[in-house]
Amino acid sequence: MTDLSQNPCIICVAITGSLPTKENNPAVPITVAEQIESTHEAFEAGATIAHCHVRDDEGKPTSDPERFARLKEGLEKHCPGMIVQLSTGGRSGAGRTRGGMLPLSPDMASLSVGSNNFPTRVYENPPDLVDWLAAEMLTHGVKPEIEAFDLSHILQAAKMHRDGRIKDRPYVQFVMGVKNAMPADREVFDYYIHTVKRLFGADTPWCAAGIGADQITLNDWAISSGGHART
Amino acid sequence: MTDLSQNPCIICVAITGSLPTKENNPAVPITVAEQIESTHEAFEAGATIAHCHVRDDEGKPTSDPERFARLKEGLEKHCPGMIVQLSTGGRSGAGRTRGGMLPLSPDMASLSVGSNNFPTRVYENPPDLVDWLAAEMLTHGVKPEIEAFDLSHILQAAKMHRDGRIKDRPYVQFVMGVKNAMPADREVFDYYIHTVKRLFGADTPWCAAGIGADQITLNDWAISSGGHART
Ligand SMILES: [Zn+2]
Ligand SMILES: [Zn+2]
Ligand SMILES: [Zn+2]
Ligand SMILES: [Zn+2]
Repeated sequence: MTDLSQNPCIICVAITGSLPTKENNPAVPITVAEQIESTHEAFEAGATIAHCHVRDDEGKPTSDPERFARLKEGLEKHCPGMIVQLSTGGRSGAGRTRGGMLPLSPDMASLSVGSNNFPTRVYENPPDLVDWLAAEMLTHGVKPEIEAFDLSHILQAAKMHRDGRIKDRPYVQFVMGVKNAMPADREVFDYYIHTVKRLFGADTPWCAAGIGADQITLNDWAISSGGHART
Repeated sequence: MTDLSQNPCIICVAITGSLPTKENNPAVPITVAEQIESTHEAFEAGATIAHCHVRDDEGKPTSDPERFARLKEGLEKHCPGMIVQLSTGGRSGAGRTRGGMLPLSPDMASLSVGSNNFPTRVYENPPDLVDWLAAEMLTHGVKPEIEAFDLSHILQAAKMHRDGRIKDRPYVQFVMGVKNAMPADREVFDYYIHTVKRLFGADTPWCAAGIGADQITLNDWAISSGGHART
């Protein structure tokens, strides 16, 4: 697996995401075959990490380990060397089903370490679920990507690293632009970077993702500030 | 009601709080009579705001409007001029029962505008409940104290102020030291102050509360940085 701190330009491509459906965008890859095809294009264009969600036969988000297994296998075959990151996010399931694919030992998996509001509901990551997901990642040798929807999530990752719940120096993704969570605010963005450097060292890699209309903004900010971008 | 920005030293006394019981501390005032007695002492000692929780007959946290009414009435009689702030916090009830006392039109009420983790669970403040509580405060002329358990809560208060859901410039309390939420971190504390000044103006009053062992630390930080303390 690529060393994130050595690579000067990591592009993380989010395959499918958790929200769009064929109805609002017919180009969204839904089947595993479509996902592999579209990721392969991004891989050829230079993407380093594939952040993966999967869908069921009706196109709805799911955490089905069998789907994830087929996607992971396909990506390993068609995009050799690409980092496969599976989502344990809460839009695709509830409770421990969110981590049911971790025994596949992907290179990475997303990990939320706190709770926050989403546009119409609470994004629930209760402490016992966070600890269970982190423990599963330790067991199966999966590197977490910390999804920081707010500042305390970075400090919580630091605490989990200090007490051994997270093995390596945390790799944090700043998520901005989710309604009712953290907006895309340049000052806060800079303070996030400052906080990551303060807590984990000046050379710590990080990445950023803007939601919806803020995606382009966050890519600009991340690339011009030495971070990795998600497209 | 005292103008918070004019008073050089506001002390906010938390009556009873939501957690302690007679079993872990026999000195905790539980009945309304005990609460008025103990607040009166704090008032004579200079406390300006009474942040109030109430208990039921078994000593458990409740949002019972009738209890709140008796406490408010007693405080107004015994501590004239003291600002009465009623808690709409989630430890004392669920959903809209948390705001059932707002028709009493207290001077202030606490308002959480986001969700976060607590030591063993999610502190749930879903967007529709936040909006309903804020609307009730507008209707009944209640000034909210924004409970900022994380940085995004300050930005969310700013957004709610911009679009009219919060009438006056928000009065923010920084809450630190809750396990699995924001720890007592001096750098973050200073950034909270910076953010309040940036969003609401350099002369904006604010206050801070440390939980458990962090209470003394936060009081020190708040008083030495020009904020109001909660004791
Ligand atoms: Zn990423
Ligand atoms: Zn995702
Ligand atoms: Zn206060
Ligand atoms: Zn309270």
